[in-house]
Amino acid sequence: MTQRTRVGILGATGMVGQRFIQLLDGHPQFVVTALAASDRSQGTPFGDACTWRLPGAMPQWARSIVVGAPSGPLDCDVVFSSLPGDVAEPVEATLADQGYPVISNSSSHRMDERVPLVIPEVNPDHLCLLEQRSGPGFIVTNPNCTAIMVALALAPLHRMFGVEAVTLATMQALSGAGYPGVSALDITDNVLPYIAHEEEKVEQELGKLFGTADGGQITAQAAFSVSAQCHRVAVQDGHVAAVWVRLRNQVDVNDVAEAFRTFTGPPQEMKLHSAPPHPIVLRSERDRPQPRLDRDAGGGMAVSVGRLKRDATGAFRFLTLSHNTIRGAAGAALLNAELLLARGVPLRRSP
Amino acid sequence: MTQRTRVGILGATGMVGQRFIQLLDGHPQFVVTALAASDRSQGTPFGDACTWRLPGAMPQWARSIVVGAPSGPLDCDVVFSSLPGDVAEPVEATLADQGYPVISNSSSHRMDERVPLVIPEVNPDHLCLLEQRSGPGFIVTNPNCTAIMVALALAPLHRMFGVEAVTLATMQALSGAGYPGVSALDITDNVLPYIAHEEEKVEQELGKLFGTADGGQITAQAAFSVSAQCHRVAVQDGHVAAVWVRLRNQVDVNDVAEAFRTFTGPPQEMKLHSAPPHPIVLRSERDRPQPRLDRDAGGGMAVSVGRLKRDATGAFRFLTLSHNTIRGAAGAALLNAELLLARGVPLRRSP
Amino acid sequence: MTQRTRVGILGATGMVGQRFIQLLDGHPQFVVTALAASDRSQGTPFGDACTWRLPGAMPQWARSIVVGAPSGPLDCDVVFSSLPGDVAEPVEATLADQGYPVISNSSSHRMDERVPLVIPEVNPDHLCLLEQRSGPGFIVTNPNCTAIMVALALAPLHRMFGVEAVTLATMQALSGAGYPGVSALDITDNVLPYIAHEEEKVEQELGKLFGTADGGQITAQAAFSVSAQCHRVAVQDGHVAAVWVRLRNQVDVNDVAEAFRTFTGPPQEMKLHSAPPHPIVLRSERDRPQPRLDRDAGGGMAVSVGRLKRDATGAFRFLTLSHNTIRGAAGAALLNAELLLARGVPLRRSP
Amino acid sequence: MTQRTRVGILGATGMVGQRFIQLLDGHPQFVVTALAASDRSQGTPFGDACTWRLPGAMPQWARSIVVGAPSGPLDCDVVFSSLPGDVAEPVEATLADQGYPVISNSSSHRMDERVPLVIPEVNPDHLCLLEQRSGPGFIVTNPNCTAIMVALALAPLHRMFGVEAVTLATMQALSGAGYPGVSALDITDNVLPYIAHEEEKVEQELGKLFGTADGGQITAQAAFSVSAQCHRVAVQDGHVAAVWVRLRNQVDVNDVAEAFRTFTGPPQEMKLHSAPPHPIVLRSERDRPQPRLDRDAGGGMAVSVGRLKRDATGAFRFLTLSHNTIRGAAGAALLNAELLLARGVPLRRSP
Repeated sequence: MTQRTRVGILGATGMVGQRFIQLLDGHPQFVVTALAASDRSQGTPFGDACTWRLPGAMPQWARSIVVGAPSGPLDCDVVFSSLPGDVAEPVEATLADQGYPVISNSSSHRMDERVPLVIPEVNPDHLCLLEQRSGPGFIVTNPNCTAIMVALALAPLHRMFGVEAVTLATMQALSGAGYPGVSALDITDNVLPYIAHEEEKVEQELGKLFGTADGGQITAQAAFSVSAQCHRVAVQDGHVAAVWVRLRNQVDVNDVAEAFRTFTGPPQEMKLHSAPPHPIVLRSERDRPQPRLDRDAGGGMAVSVGRLKRDATGAFRFLTLSHNTIRGAAGAALLNAELLLARGVPLRRSP
Repeated sequence: MTQRTRVGILGATGMVGQRFIQLLDGHPQFVVTALAASDRSQGTPFGDACTWRLPGAMPQWARSIVVGAPSGPLDCDVVFSSLPGDVAEPVEATLADQGYPVISNSSSHRMDERVPLVIPEVNPDHLCLLEQRSGPGFIVTNPNCTAIMVALALAPLHRMFGVEAVTLATMQALSGAGYPGVSALDITDNVLPYIAHEEEKVEQELGKLFGTADGGQITAQAAFSVSAQCHRVAVQDGHVAAVWVRLRNQVDVNDVAEAFRTFTGPPQEMKLHSAPPHPIVLRSERDRPQPRLDRDAGGGMAVSVGRLKRDATGAFRFLTLSHNTIRGAAGAALLNAELLLARGVPLRRSP
Repeated sequence: MTQRTRVGILGATGMVGQRFIQLLDGHPQFVVTALAASDRSQGTPFGDACTWRLPGAMPQWARSIVVGAPSGPLDCDVVFSSLPGDVAEPVEATLADQGYPVISNSSSHRMDERVPLVIPEVNPDHLCLLEQRSGPGFIVTNPNCTAIMVALALAPLHRMFGVEAVTLATMQALSGAGYPGVSALDITDNVLPYIAHEEEKVEQELGKLFGTADGGQITAQAAFSVSAQCHRVAVQDGHVAAVWVRLRNQVDVNDVAEAFRTFTGPPQEMKLHSAPPHPIVLRSERDRPQPRLDRDAGGGMAVSVGRLKRDATGAFRFLTLSHNTIRGAAGAALLNAELLLARGVPLRRSP
Repeated sequence: MTQRTRVGILGATGMVGQRFIQLLDGHPQFVVTALAASDRSQGTPFGDACTWRLPGAMPQWARSIVVGAPSGPLDCDVVFSSLPGDVAEPVEATLADQGYPVISNSSSHRMDERVPLVIPEVNPDHLCLLEQRSGPGFIVTNPNCTAIMVALALAPLHRMFGVEAVTLATMQALSGAGYPGVSALDITDNVLPYIAHEEEKVEQELGKLFGTADGGQITAQAAFSVSAQCHRVAVQDGHVAAVWVRLRNQVDVNDVAEAFRTFTGPPQEMKLHSAPPHPIVLRSERDRPQPRLDRDAGGGMAVSVGRLKRDATGAFRFLTLSHNTIRGAAGAALLNAELLLARGVPLRRSP
């Protein structure tokens, strides 16, 4: 076995941080050597600092790692960040300045024009923005959980038929709000029709993801409109979106189905460790996908699509679902890191 | 007090049947004299036949009424029906032939071109279809619970600005499926993205509701398209829909807000007993309406609208919510009956 | 109408604070003139400071009251307190010293031997502890929500047959943890088998409640043992306890049923405003009481008991249920205040 | 690999039937060759007949097996039964008469004095009842899901210290009621305090399990009393019970903890395929076990115990939790079959 890259995780005690640890347990290319989190837990072994909230036990190797400060120094070569947006901004910038590659799930640098916002199957060419970097450190971000899921579903349609307009309504899982996140008093017997900044993130990030990158720069935003209404429902994991897409080309529902079914990208071609065999699983049952049954498709890395139909106005409508803390967060960052390695981008701190 | 009209309820033991009983308890114009339900409970006093599933106790007067057969004869002058669609079709037709006015919440006759499909605030003129009737018996229906809620929200916009296209995604409550309805195993930690016939009902019924009635006939369907995706969520009562509306006239968001706020109709003008003061309650908080907090607005008869915004494409989007077994079912039929009385249509069986 | 006593509410923005406001809306003996809460909302009108979380609208009169500091001065004659335990301790003591009667739902002074811990139907004689007071100010407390419910169910049995031992397992509602309280991630598809200090409170407070007060002092604790296991379940309001009681006298199940049914106390005899007609509602159905259906019995002030049975060991077992923020909190304090008024204890600050 | 025993599953489309299929997927000793279910699905390939309700996909091999009638003939050597109690009674008896070994999870024959009711770690000696059998066919049953969990927790205590009395209150998962089972309208925002026959089953089956078997007969019932109150809560999988145990010997809490921790039985000693390394996982956190986090301990075959404490009366109290459709149903039957094989009982139909 070749030597594994040494990884640090920022925000390690949070919901996404715990997913990072779970996904990195036994990973062939990465080994976790540093865990960092907010002040309270610093200086404590992770096994004492962290209340493990995922089914199954905390990996044994994580227990003894003493929790450090996110601002470093961190005993690792690459940093995965799942810090809250406001905290992440200066910390990630500083770490990049110090020479760390920072693979971030945080929102703070996503819309920065010098920072690639990447989904490996959708816009791997946006990594060209890294050409601008002066030193060894840099930041690569993945989109918001809902934006990832919708982008993956749109990618084959846009590539083959041209997307003109997108309308979507989401039903989002509780884990998307972190811990403690949503109060049980608010969500029991209820739907919450508001998630702070979510609709704006989805609309803006899809614009950047489907924009054009050229010469190390984003030269254009997506040529289609996006209108999103976002809602929280009483589901542990697994975001759902009802989507309407207006296409530029004249196509029928079989063409769209075929586009979903045959979609692949670099992660599948390069057989990246975390890549699902099919990024999109198209379902034909009238009542699927469902969060509880389908969120773990492709190890949580596949997007399930179902209920595909052409409506009376000629728009195509369908339901899309994915695991919001795996494909929508920790797994998204991890796949970005695997893509960078496969492309030969050095994930090594060079001070 | 003038003499009250004698009412029979079909499907009295079901979720909607129990709401009828609750809403008719103490009603100034109606008194319940007959209760009918499926075979099993026939011949038994209602207090023994019915497991009461609403908070609060079953009204005392209902306990001793012996449950009869829906097919009659029924000791009453007017019939409220909440039978399942397949059972309702022949039973309601027979009762109308026998001279009963039948005010129905069932789906079976809604799209019949001789039967008015009416929301008093939206299309009271459709009652002109009753002119066709030969005898004293007739059927008047109210729409599907989701169609009612959306129609009430669209009505002021259509009237003032002309609706061109409607797109909506629903999050619907459990009580809409009746009892036992949805299995708890299916909905716990889950969303169900399919409700049998629901999307078709919403699309078709809105077409009829906003169509034109003239000379005792429906002469045109609504001049706008409707595309609906319907989902079930873990909420007891209260349907929610995320709606996008494209309008014909050029208006701004204040115009639309004002249209919602000032909307009234015959039930408000005639001060019908079950009419809410405002059919639409417009909310300005960023996270309202919510099912648990707002389903009982206007005694369950008002539709709450919130999160109104003009999106980048010029469409208006908003959230709408109403109590699906009050304004969306039993209360809808009751308001229809009150409108008929106020209009002087005799609600009296004349054999 | 006689002049109403002027009331201040501490912790007014919390779950129990909002229940106080709801229960005092239109109360014939009390009028709210002061609202106090934690620092953040001080100086702001209550309508802006408080996110109302109960179904229905915030009473209009509460909107304009400017939120003050709990430590006073408060423009009122009597204080209802629902402050968190740690904050309550010094604040309530200071207010009592300043001459305010303090009717508290907080835990901090409940076990103080100079402070009465009272349920009007159970141990009104414990008010004799007030004889010790030197000035006009004092503190009267009500027990923990679970302790109240269980004490009310035990009271008739203890009075008539002598309780020897009590064992109970609870399933407690979310609102008991306040807001935001329980994380939705923790309780969805789950049971939480731990509520901080709850088991100890139930065991200790029942000991004091059923103790003996004499000559202005508690002279003995309850002569029976209590063993409680407490759990949180995904219910909005309404605590449930499965109870086993071992009695000293030889009785049969009909005797116990009769004791439940005929139980009354001073609130019923004096027809206090908030008193339910029967403090205990005994149900005979095999599957009642249930939180959603029965928590509002007696306006939320009655305890429902069901599934009464004598088991093979001779113990009596049953289920008991009550509304934890009405009879178990705000309503409990209010009933204590009404009892004090009826007994002629002046609820008036005399500085 | 030695030849695998050919297995048929009765009630294959139900919740427990699906668990059987999942647990037998890849089993080294058994291969499924027959699936049987109620009339509607007979004659159809299982892939079409069964709506798969477990996360993950239906195993490919199961799809093409044509569903047969439970009454046979069945193309297999041993039968696993998860039929509903009323259907199971004659079907299982007939199959045993026809020479099939029937390993049943159904309740119908559990209390039959000629039929062993067995948990391999608790009372494997009860298999001596099979000595009575005349032909090759027989029935072996496992207890009710709650009885199994409680019996496993009691076993080490009874063996080492003598149990005198048991009191328990359960919070049981939805999957225990089968599909569709509990109505979502009943359980949302609620607790259901009644499960048909459950309390009786728990009390009676524990009596038989801890009874004495001698000379091929049950010669005595358990020498301790059991009193159970059973409740349904909104949890997908994982039953919980709050238990009080009175012991005959004088012991302290460390003795009891040690008894839990060191407990093993034949499945562990013989390393049966489905045996968890430790039948009991003792947890020391103050808020564990929890259904969502701990139901899959030991692959769903371990019972988690926590919150162990000696109460003021000298009784020991604790919480116990297990997966009700794995250790509590399909896995229990499978472990019984593995024990029979290991003991050399031929699982082979001999007509």
